[in-house]
Amino acid sequence: MHLATVAHAAGTSAAVLDGGEWRALPAADLSAFLASGAVADTTGEVIAGAVPVLPLPAPGKVICCGLNYADHIRETGRELPAHPTLFTKYADTLLGPTADLVLPKGLEVDWEAELAVVVGTTLRRADRATALAGIAGYTVANDISVRDWQYRTLEWFQGKAWDASTPLGPVVVTPDELDPAAGVEVICRVNGEQVQRDSTRTLVFDAADLLAYISTFTVLRPGDLVLTGTPGGVGVAREPKRFLAHGDVVETEIPGIGTLRTTVRFDG
Amino acid sequence: MHLATVAHAAGTSAAVLDGGEWRALPAADLSAFLASGAVADTTGEVIAGAVPVLPLPAPGKVICCGLNYADHIRETGRELPAHPTLFTKYADTLLGPTADLVLPKGLEVDWEAELAVVVGTTLRRADRATALAGIAGYTVANDISVRDWQYRTLEWFQGKAWDASTPLGPVVVTPDELDPAAGVEVICRVNGEQVQRDSTRTLVFDAADLLAYISTFTVLRPGDLVLTGTPGGVGVAREPKRFLAHGDVVETEIPGIGTLRTTVRFDG
Repeated sequence: MHLATVAHAAGTSAAVLDGGEWRALPAADLSAFLASGAVADTTGEVIAGAVPVLPLPAPGKVICCGLNYADHIRETGRELPAHPTLFTKYADTLLGPTADLVLPKGLEVDWEAELAVVVGTTLRRADRATALAGIAGYTVANDISVRDWQYRTLEWFQGKAWDASTPLGPVVVTPDELDPAAGVEVICRVNGEQVQRDSTRTLVFDAADLLAYISTFTVLRPGDLVLTGTPGGVGVAREPKRFLAHGDVVETEIPGIGTLRTTVRFDG
Repeated sequence: MHLATVAHAAGTSAAVLDGGEWRALPAADLSAFLASGAVADTTGEVIAGAVPVLPLPAPGKVICCGLNYADHIRETGRELPAHPTLFTKYADTLLGPTADLVLPKGLEVDWEAELAVVVGTTLRRADRATALAGIAGYTVANDISVRDWQYRTLEWFQGKAWDASTPLGPVVVTPDELDPAAGVEVICRVNGEQVQRDSTRTLVFDAADLLAYISTFTVLRPGDLVLTGTPGGVGVAREPKRFLAHGDVVETEIPGIGTLRTTVRFDG
């Protein structure tokens, strides 16, 4: 199934795709729908003029893994890790799938295409099998990073959690339709030029590994998000370094899920 | 004023101290009270048998500053920083002022006494004066740290965000009664032995600095928490290293606010 939060004339609704039409699910958005514990079905009304927006507007936790693709780890000059490197964002950090990325001028802004995992059940000290069964689905994210702030100190958070800086969506695809462990492509294009492309097959820690690991120390709940890290090809690792400019269009794609289209605007 | 969330026979309530008695404020807890935008006064009913519990059960953001006391920075072998080092916890990470700290056996658990700042208004790209005016009050925290997990990777988050591991409270004292910029003592005792004591006068980044800095990239809202860092004297920096043991009692005190009393239990 393809799940989303869609905008329509009267507001927003959680929705499920049914033969090219969006049908309503009984909640104002997908965060609320997943929190309700209800099971998605296609018995709801067709929503006219539905447009997918930020699918998960209210995750309690957005936890990100860095350094998780073998080739990206190598481009940063590091060894393959024994443990996932974890940092956080907030619900405020998220941005809709076609919204502009608006940031102050003068920042070093970089792309990081990622597969995002949507938690479907409460996970507390879960083993790998329980974590895998607790996945509601997968979506696309771009962990847009403000590199100058990220590297001001040892802790990356302040470069990773600028409000409205992480495009997410456009839909959440359930695990019966997509298997990242078998491999899905994660692609980033800037102004049409491919800058990242790799398969989730090469993840050091896969979705179930990450959920199980995180749930050792903090509970995960329906609608929480775990970003699985980015492949090689980020701007800061290029020679010379390359950052996003005003007017650049970043497309972040995972075939089988969809494409985020983000226009960069520096607002002074 | 001293504000708190208190437990009583019928549940919990936000409350204000009035001549030794707790009077009700119109919300179930201090997070909800601050979010409501109401102003505290002492016109509410006296609450019989009120006991302060976790004052802020539902902050949207808990942002922590590391390496912020000059002497603690020196004990970690680092230079005085140009920018605050920031990492995060969650509401789930917080623990009541007298609750036991319960963690699995075998972890390297350390203390970090801290002054915590409670946000009182919405702050977005605030300057220092606006940030200072936006402080609802101050409380006591212990940024209990699982050192072996903290140092597994470059990012500290996984050692800092174990559920129910950060004692907070017992009350929130408003800025008219407490001025950390002038200096308040931050004290930690383990089984009665003083292990940390320093003045907030020596903070590299004070409360207003931190709120202004953070609000540059992410909005702060009423009830959000900013922990200001810990003085020298943590266990991991001792020779030999010292970690908490089952049954240890950690007292975290800021005179003028109060004392947290935390008993350590490893539950296997």
